[in-house]
Amino acid sequence: MRSPVPDYLVDVLDAVRSIDDGAPADYIEVLAKADTSRLAVALATVDGEVYAAGDSDVAFSIQSISKPFAYAAAIEDVGLDAVLARIGVEPSGNAFNELSLEDGTHRPMNPMINAGALATHALVAGPDASGPQRVERLRTLMSAMAGRELGYDEAVYEAELRDAHRNRGLAHMLRAGGIITAEAETIVDGYVRQCSVDVTVRDLALMAATLANGGVQPLTGRQVIHRDGVRQVLSVMTTCGMYDAAGDWVSNVGIPAKSGVAGGIIGALPGQLGLAVFSPKLDAHGNSARGVAVCERLSRDMGLHMMDVSQIGRAVVRKLVVTLAGGKGRTGDAIVPVYELRGAVLFGGAELLTRTLAHDLGDANDAGAGHHREATAVILSQLHTHSLNDVATRMLLENLRRLHADRRTVVLVDPDGVLDLTSLDPARRPRVVATDAEAQAVVGGDACRIVASQEDTGR
Amino acid sequence: MRSPVPDYLVDVLDAVRSIDDGAPADYIEVLAKADTSRLAVALATVDGEVYAAGDSDVAFSIQSISKPFAYAAAIEDVGLDAVLARIGVEPSGNAFNELSLEDGTHRPMNPMINAGALATHALVAGPDASGPQRVERLRTLMSAMAGRELGYDEAVYEAELRDAHRNRGLAHMLRAGGIITAEAETIVDGYVRQCSVDVTVRDLALMAATLANGGVQPLTGRQVIHRDGVRQVLSVMTTCGMYDAAGDWVSNVGIPAKSGVAGGIIGALPGQLGLAVFSPKLDAHGNSARGVAVCERLSRDMGLHMMDVSQIGRAVVRKLVVTLAGGKGRTGDAIVPVYELRGAVLFGGAELLTRTLAHDLGDANDAGAGHHREATAVILSQLHTHSLNDVATRMLLENLRRLHADRRTVVLVDPDGVLDLTSLDPARRPRVVATDAEAQAVVGGDACRIVASQEDTGR
Amino acid sequence: MRSPVPDYLVDVLDAVRSIDDGAPADYIEVLAKADTSRLAVALATVDGEVYAAGDSDVAFSIQSISKPFAYAAAIEDVGLDAVLARIGVEPSGNAFNELSLEDGTHRPMNPMINAGALATHALVAGPDASGPQRVERLRTLMSAMAGRELGYDEAVYEAELRDAHRNRGLAHMLRAGGIITAEAETIVDGYVRQCSVDVTVRDLALMAATLANGGVQPLTGRQVIHRDGVRQVLSVMTTCGMYDAAGDWVSNVGIPAKSGVAGGIIGALPGQLGLAVFSPKLDAHGNSARGVAVCERLSRDMGLHMMDVSQIGRAVVRKLVVTLAGGKGRTGDAIVPVYELRGAVLFGGAELLTRTLAHDLGDANDAGAGHHREATAVILSQLHTHSLNDVATRMLLENLRRLHADRRTVVLVDPDGVLDLTSLDPARRPRVVATDAEAQAVVGGDACRIVASQEDTGR
Amino acid sequence: MRSPVPDYLVDVLDAVRSIDDGAPADYIEVLAKADTSRLAVALATVDGEVYAAGDSDVAFSIQSISKPFAYAAAIEDVGLDAVLARIGVEPSGNAFNELSLEDGTHRPMNPMINAGALATHALVAGPDASGPQRVERLRTLMSAMAGRELGYDEAVYEAELRDAHRNRGLAHMLRAGGIITAEAETIVDGYVRQCSVDVTVRDLALMAATLANGGVQPLTGRQVIHRDGVRQVLSVMTTCGMYDAAGDWVSNVGIPAKSGVAGGIIGALPGQLGLAVFSPKLDAHGNSARGVAVCERLSRDMGLHMMDVSQIGRAVVRKLVVTLAGGKGRTGDAIVPVYELRGAVLFGGAELLTRTLAHDLGDANDAGAGHHREATAVILSQLHTHSLNDVATRMLLENLRRLHADRRTVVLVDPDGVLDLTSLDPARRPRVVATDAEAQAVVGGDACRIVASQEDTGR
Repeated sequence: MRSPVPDYLVDVLDAVRSIDDGAPADYIEVLAKADTSRLAVALATVDGEVYAAGDSDVAFSIQSISKPFAYAAAIEDVGLDAVLARIGVEPSGNAFNELSLEDGTHRPMNPMINAGALATHALVAGPDASGPQRVERLRTLMSAMAGRELGYDEAVYEAELRDAHRNRGLAHMLRAGGIITAEAETIVDGYVRQCSVDVTVRDLALMAATLANGGVQPLTGRQVIHRDGVRQVLSVMTTCGMYDAAGDWVSNVGIPAKSGVAGGIIGALPGQLGLAVFSPKLDAHGNSARGVAVCERLSRDMGLHMMDVSQIGRAVVRKLVVTLAGGKGRTGDAIVPVYELRGAVLFGGAELLTRTLAHDLGDANDAGAGHHREATAVILSQLHTHSLNDVATRMLLENLRRLHADRRTVVLVDPDGVLDLTSLDPARRPRVVATDAEAQAVVGGDACRIVASQEDTGR
Repeated sequence: MRSPVPDYLVDVLDAVRSIDDGAPADYIEVLAKADTSRLAVALATVDGEVYAAGDSDVAFSIQSISKPFAYAAAIEDVGLDAVLARIGVEPSGNAFNELSLEDGTHRPMNPMINAGALATHALVAGPDASGPQRVERLRTLMSAMAGRELGYDEAVYEAELRDAHRNRGLAHMLRAGGIITAEAETIVDGYVRQCSVDVTVRDLALMAATLANGGVQPLTGRQVIHRDGVRQVLSVMTTCGMYDAAGDWVSNVGIPAKSGVAGGIIGALPGQLGLAVFSPKLDAHGNSARGVAVCERLSRDMGLHMMDVSQIGRAVVRKLVVTLAGGKGRTGDAIVPVYELRGAVLFGGAELLTRTLAHDLGDANDAGAGHHREATAVILSQLHTHSLNDVATRMLLENLRRLHADRRTVVLVDPDGVLDLTSLDPARRPRVVATDAEAQAVVGGDACRIVASQEDTGR
Repeated sequence: MRSPVPDYLVDVLDAVRSIDDGAPADYIEVLAKADTSRLAVALATVDGEVYAAGDSDVAFSIQSISKPFAYAAAIEDVGLDAVLARIGVEPSGNAFNELSLEDGTHRPMNPMINAGALATHALVAGPDASGPQRVERLRTLMSAMAGRELGYDEAVYEAELRDAHRNRGLAHMLRAGGIITAEAETIVDGYVRQCSVDVTVRDLALMAATLANGGVQPLTGRQVIHRDGVRQVLSVMTTCGMYDAAGDWVSNVGIPAKSGVAGGIIGALPGQLGLAVFSPKLDAHGNSARGVAVCERLSRDMGLHMMDVSQIGRAVVRKLVVTLAGGKGRTGDAIVPVYELRGAVLFGGAELLTRTLAHDLGDANDAGAGHHREATAVILSQLHTHSLNDVATRMLLENLRRLHADRRTVVLVDPDGVLDLTSLDPARRPRVVATDAEAQAVVGGDACRIVASQEDTGR
Repeated sequence: MRSPVPDYLVDVLDAVRSIDDGAPADYIEVLAKADTSRLAVALATVDGEVYAAGDSDVAFSIQSISKPFAYAAAIEDVGLDAVLARIGVEPSGNAFNELSLEDGTHRPMNPMINAGALATHALVAGPDASGPQRVERLRTLMSAMAGRELGYDEAVYEAELRDAHRNRGLAHMLRAGGIITAEAETIVDGYVRQCSVDVTVRDLALMAATLANGGVQPLTGRQVIHRDGVRQVLSVMTTCGMYDAAGDWVSNVGIPAKSGVAGGIIGALPGQLGLAVFSPKLDAHGNSARGVAVCERLSRDMGLHMMDVSQIGRAVVRKLVVTLAGGKGRTGDAIVPVYELRGAVLFGGAELLTRTLAHDLGDANDAGAGHHREATAVILSQLHTHSLNDVATRMLLENLRRLHADRRTVVLVDPDGVLDLTSLDPARRPRVVATDAEAQAVVGGDACRIVASQEDTGR
């Protein structure tokens, strides 16, 4: 059986090929004479599968799509507070090349407009960095996200530098407002370099997938950017990524995104996938005309809208009741409730487990409730738990404390140590084992035997 | 064991009680003299569990928190296109009571500012509705979401109507611009009624949870609002819900939200939960000062930020290999791969299953690949599949087509009919059964027996 | 000989008749169906001569041209400070019907936009006035300026009142901001009445000439509006009269002006004339297309631009030297310098006389200078002095004090008492006479005889 | 007798000395450490008298006060149309250093904000000028206006150039928008030079008086700037000179003005005078705090508000009736009406003469009217006519044509040729003489004698 995904992507490209609106950027000749027949799409899952169609190996300059990655670098290099002190996070309602400074602070409204991107570039690699250090830091970071060494489109770099009057204007303004302290000319040069990095949609899809995957590159597994920085970058892409039509994009497409003047667009859907499109003709907003159409179609066809409720699967709690014929040192059968926590567990999953435990075991002070209130031992299985976020961890530990207070024995099946017990008083820590069989042995005694095992539907 | 969640909520309230900034709204006396010591929080999961702390049974007027619900009603009653023709979706960057019309169209910028909310109210219950019909439609809808009959705070209604100069101004302006056609005075009266609905944080949490649950009221299970409308409402809450600080709220809290002048705030995290807070003192933006603090703390403590990657658990594909000792009419053992799709499945889950099938079974034209390439039958289990979205359904059907083309037998365990097969050519439809045992019998013959069953880790 | 002015005006109308751009206002039918062939111009000098051409006796509704007159009335009735507390004076850069309130104060930007005009109307006739009293106050004032009883165009009044949604919106907003306290509906009704006053270009030209003449109606000589109020009105017409193109109008036409939606425009050139045009088709700015062309042509042809330096004639000082053969009780000839101050004297004229006196008579402490330093008597003639402004009066009195200190006799020829001597110490007051002959008699004795009289060109 | 004007100016300075608000500009040290006790005022009449008080010989950098002069130079050097194509004339409502470009055209809003001033500088001396040529052109022009060679404050120049980040930003932006084509750096350098010209209040008062005098330097009599350019400059100073408070300044002070950051302010009252003030402490708008107070006081005390009706004296028509006892070749007395036109004559004066002639002489077709209808000869005296503007000239010529058509003899007393007769058909030209006596001789014959001469009050 062959996967239908590649075929689907080919179909999507064919469907948008009839769109012939717009024109390539014409402010420099090297972009103006782009081959407007080029069309490509790529999609990378957070576990590293990449699907692509069309001219997916054709390289083009990354342009403004570099902005979120530079923003991520700046947050990494000087800290979020220092970044927020110089660049805001509000949509400007203006075009990308407007100054759009906040009253009072002189901060550019956000890092996705050029003024904010210049201010962001100036923070990369820290306060003492030289121009070349900033540039190399960004190339290296973007390469780590793409999973290969990226280079530059020199023709684009040279043409843009020659004609960068507006960015020079913005940079001098930022210097006047105290937002940048380096030489304006150096910042503009570095920013133009940053924008001239050469990429394919494959690269971009993996870079977007790195954001979607909490900063971990899907193929290399390397934590390229800290998770908190990623959240900030995705937030800003949501409200400011598509220039002056934030609300429209969020309503229609619902994927944090960023476009570039060479015709690229990326989208990063948290926890799911990164996508990238390329087609040089731009619409009136400066976004790739066919690219937008591809994004709208992918979002609709594939249900990628982030407000789509079905996006979010709750972690699953599976309840079993195991009856153990007593093993060594035990007499009689033991009826043991087993709670399996499956998937990526966050508040919802932890809450569901907590609620189930409270329901099944009852309150120690309330003799009547809870169909397992007689159980003296409980098995908690993390075998199929992918991950626990902070709140889930805290809730599980609190559950362990309360079960201990109720004088129940807990055995934790957690071969990978998903649940970090270090903050729990050692005296209250449960026994941790690697397999179900071990857990059963702890409760039922060595060589105990499963007499019955069935899903517990009791409530 | 008692759940720690209520204790946590009490702690959160205690932590913010020291915040004494701000003042209650003072434009009408009935709000100005509110008991500023009131403080409450409630949290409702999408499966209907409600946790609450503080003054969770104290009622207050819903005020602007009614806006997203009225927007949902308008979309339901006249259709999204008709709504978008009259009201935009862009953040205005202005205060809630600014006119903020778009050039050219005269559309209010979005439905969360007063001008847009008045225009929204005018669409409720359709073009021929009377004032009382619009009002009753909204009360009924909000009651259905809260799960109880809601009433009005008459004192608030009368005081606000007396002093509604600004809203009268806005309504006449909208009439002048052709956005509304009803009498301005009638619209203002109805809007003031809508804002005077009396609610508690419990009510609001359930109303928010209804949004978070795709329009299905968690307790009654009724589809109160169509899923597409919910997506639109949540999108607009994301970019416009907290007035002039959209970017800041998305970055810091990351939950689609709406606040009201009486001191309430709701948040709706898609697929997870609804929350509500109440405290009458407002900050400079007009949002409840303690309420904002509670939201920030809940988001941080509970990992509720929608850009937090860990939010989204991928659907799980569980692979087993079952060896069946032949039953009636069979000889020899059959080694049958079993694919269980668990959780809410959307593109990511379907893609993972697809990829797994392609990997295990190999391409029909490629003799070498696939460790199960010899398998003539495959069991596909939807037993633990909560739901399939459109794209997942389409992908699964496509998988069935391709497996059929490869001449493999597929047995589908799907007691609840989660996978809709109607669009599949009857000749290609798999056999559908209700239990694993039935599936095994289909493949291995009646009375076949499981000789071995183990997780398949082959790749 | 017949005056060429009427012929010139006819020529101007003929020249603009080919302009066929624009369309009459179409928001109410009674304006939409205006006879667009109507074309008229009138010009009234500050001494009451009225020239007119075209349909100068056709009446039309005054509309926004009433705004400066209502502003004048408000200043008169509640004082400038109270007016400025509620309405600003800055150009808004927006269309006439924008809200354009100042941040913080909620003041409409200026009284020439609708919001400001509504706020102005509310101040007319003082805080306790009723709606009908405000309306009648304005009709009476405008009638006094036009020099005849003005009435209303009832069809326009009724149609506009029916459709005044936007003005209702503005009025409610102003009430919300505390700028007006009366019922919004009453203010809108009164304002619509104010705008429906029926006028001809003759009326408007005389009303404008009243402004140009410092508030004195040219024909009746009645001081209809206080001079300070007039200055304020003309200042605001200069910067805000032609809506969103203040700078353009000041540069091109250079006459304080105001236009109305029925096709009228007035211009008031301080000290010189009032003009009015009428043609119903409006340009994109909402100003009469032919009317603007007439104004530009009149300004250019007639040199009416207020920054045209040649506008301002300096008051003339005429110096004579009269040799008197001694009359009764005198022996020998007396050579007496005579200083005639001609025209409307303000700082420039007074300064010129002062400088001349200082030059001719020399400093008492400086024996050498001044070719009339021997003169013991000086005749100062105000016979041809039209008026003295405050500074000129103060300077002349100071001259009299200094001449007295220098022990020179001054005789003042001032039959009309143009120079007010009351603030001068009686001991230092000069002898005041009615004719040159009397003055000569005072200096040369009764029955003295002029032996020679010649212009004094000495310097 | 000594003139009281200098004493008055000293009093004004004493009165404002108590104002201690504000602070000197602090963006460069050389301005920040200015001697804030400095205070000076100067006043120059359009005929060249200069009054001064305080530190009137202390030099300071001209700064933004150079803007109107550079604007005048640009208009002179490339023409008004070319200037308007690049720089608008509308008040921006923003601070001086805002970009404030018009949508679409990218034109700076006006030449008084920095962006417009940079664009203006770039036009000086024409399209092919070098940086030094532009700078020298401006220094030379300003020197010609001041009446002495002006130099530079090198310390200010160097400090400002070092810190001109914002102006660099603006210049690069203007280059990006195609408004300037020269190197941004060169324009900024030249503009900083232009702003560093060293002046005293005496210089500035004469420079302003040159504008007030239609471009003619009062002392040298040289036409430094063309009259049309002056009108444009004064118009723009009126609406844009005092930054974001155009309406307020026009209402309160009513004098076209410009301020500079070193503490200077100039005002130019058309036809009357130029004034200049200096005091380094600036108010919140960036204008000299004491300087503004001096301007308000001068305007109020001296009646300088340009909307003050009394500003404008009408030209005077003096009518005499001379009875001549016949001279050589004549018999009997001749009663001859004499019309003297006095002062600067423009439309108003010409209209008054026209009206008088039409009244006195009557219509040729209307036998009854006109008390001088029998007069066969008329004397028109221009002896005291300072000047005639275009419209006055055209009207007088038309009067001559009509008098000729009525078969009356006209004798023109016009020794200086104030009335240009070249456009009049030679056959219709009146006899032109130099003195009243000659005129009488023409009418009454040589050796005729004046029997009676009296003012004609007939009407």
